Amino acid sequence: MLRFRCLWLSSCSSLPFNQQFAPSPILSSLRSKMAAVSYSTQSSSSSSKKLLFRQLFEKESSTYTYLLADASHPDKPALLVDPVDRTVERDLSLVKDLGLKLVYAINTHVHADHVTGSGLIKTKVPGVKSIISKASKASADILVEAGDKIQFGDLYLEVRATPGHTVGCVTYVTGDGADQPQPRMAFTGDAVLIRGCGRTDFQGGSSQQLYESIFTLPEDTFIYPAHDYKGFTVSTVGEEMLYNPRLTKDEETFKSIMENLKLSYPKMIDVAVPANMVCGLQDVESKAA
Amino acid sequence: MLRFRCLWLSSCSSLPFNQQFAPSPILSSLRSKMAAVSYSTQSSSSSSKKLLFRQLFEKESSTYTYLLADASHPDKPALLVDPVDRTVERDLSLVKDLGLKLVYAINTHVHADHVTGSGLIKTKVPGVKSIISKASKASADILVEAGDKIQFGDLYLEVRATPGHTVGCVTYVTGDGADQPQPRMAFTGDAVLIRGCGRTDFQGGSSQQLYESIFTLPEDTFIYPAHDYKGFTVSTVGEEMLYNPRLTKDEETFKSIMENLKLSYPKMIDVAVPANMVCGLQDVESKAA
Repeated sequence: MLRFRCLWLSSCSSLPFNQQFAPSPILSSLRSKMAAVSYSTQSSSSSSKKLLFRQLFEKESSTYTYLLADASHPDKPALLVDPVDRTVERDLSLVKDLGLKLVYAINTHVHADHVTGSGLIKTKVPGVKSIISKASKASADILVEAGDKIQFGDLYLEVRATPGHTVGCVTYVTGDGADQPQPRMAFTGDAVLIRGCGRTDFQGGSSQQLYESIFTLPEDTFIYPAHDYKGFTVSTVGEEMLYNPRLTKDEETFKSIMENLKLSYPKMIDVAVPANMVCGLQDVESKAA
Repeated sequence: MLRFRCLWLSSCSSLPFNQQFAPSPILSSLRSKMAAVSYSTQSSSSSSKKLLFRQLFEKESSTYTYLLADASHPDKPALLVDPVDRTVERDLSLVKDLGLKLVYAINTHVHADHVTGSGLIKTKVPGVKSIISKASKASADILVEAGDKIQFGDLYLEVRATPGHTVGCVTYVTGDGADQPQPRMAFTGDAVLIRGCGRTDFQGGSSQQLYESIFTLPEDTFIYPAHDYKGFTVSTVGEEMLYNPRLTKDEETFKSIMENLKLSYPKMIDVAVPANMVCGLQDVESKAA
């Protein structure tokens, strides 16, 4: 963890997409006609690893959920980052449509504004493992720490500690190297938002810790946050280095900004946090007890 | 226009990103430290054309606006597809941050649910030209027809006629060829939505015409619609060929579905359509008259 007040940054860009569609009698004749015109398969065009990537939005809490899969692997193993309980059906339907095998439901932190979908997903898709940071002190099947790798097929996410919004916040970054997606993609949770950052006044939050936990990645690394309230979907490290109105400030100014936000009490926190400490399944567990 | 009830589809994937950041005294020392760790520039990694692409969301009408630019061109020429009046400031701020030169404000059709930002943008950024289809009968600086190309730097959009939601609906598709983004990207307006399509009961709409206007593109072509109400951000032609609950039906079933939707009268139509016939500037023009 380097004491820079600026961010992630990385290199060149492709989000290759590979998808095999199951045969469909209804569509087969049309598809063969189309094949004559311009049909081509992704798999023949490149031998590189293929990331299938989808960004999904939950409107009420303005939460982004991310679906990532290794579409070139025979099993098409997939993971969801920050799923929301009320959009689990949508997410699982998409996973099914795309022919993916969901293996992980991952959280960047213990959310205070919505209930995670991790636990609900586990009840609906046997074999899925939930993941959260060890530092969060929440329960999950796998507890990760900085430096850990989450492998899905031939792709992986690196775990980086980015505490400050909460004590257990981590950022998941796509792997390094030519066989991984380029530029890299950072799923920052609430640590860095587009032109903003998460509040630091609850859940062991600390403006100083947030400032200190910001680390380095190449400038062209994509930043995919857990929320956006203005309709932005993505930024880059380089962009936030220049235009983030908080994180471009010196440490004292940043701390002063964060300590004077005068935000109201988070309306969902008393429901969401206890539930999210147990993968979003507080009700289920308390009923079973 | 081929009479297939299925859609666009295309080939392999990269959304390369290239961005030169203006020097900043505040950040220069930090950036040089970071350079030692992992700094790299996009420009050295590839000589191919670089599409800078951003998807933006307007929450009230669930409208997507798309920013595209040729980031490898010295002028960084950019265009906005389907800008919304109330998010113009956000969009122009992003254009400025990214160092782009906005040249076109483009609409896929005369929207009925929000006022376009095209006219407002023209008042704020001299030189920007508005674009809409000739068939829409709306006014704009440039009226396009099927087959036209909209050039921005070394990249371009093709215009395809996709009437049915309205009589003047078009789809803008990124260019064909190795020097253009692959897979191709189709900005479909309301003609094809993710797992749906636009209503056909106003503005010269026709379920038969919509069905007939669906054309072919390779399966991996990305579909970027003008709206999504469930939090999906993107689909592909192949995916909609298999899972679109309307467009996978035969023509008669499709027409029956569209004629029995029993949707309420569009609440914004009486404000939005007259305004959008004149680039969203009805009030300005009527006051000037």
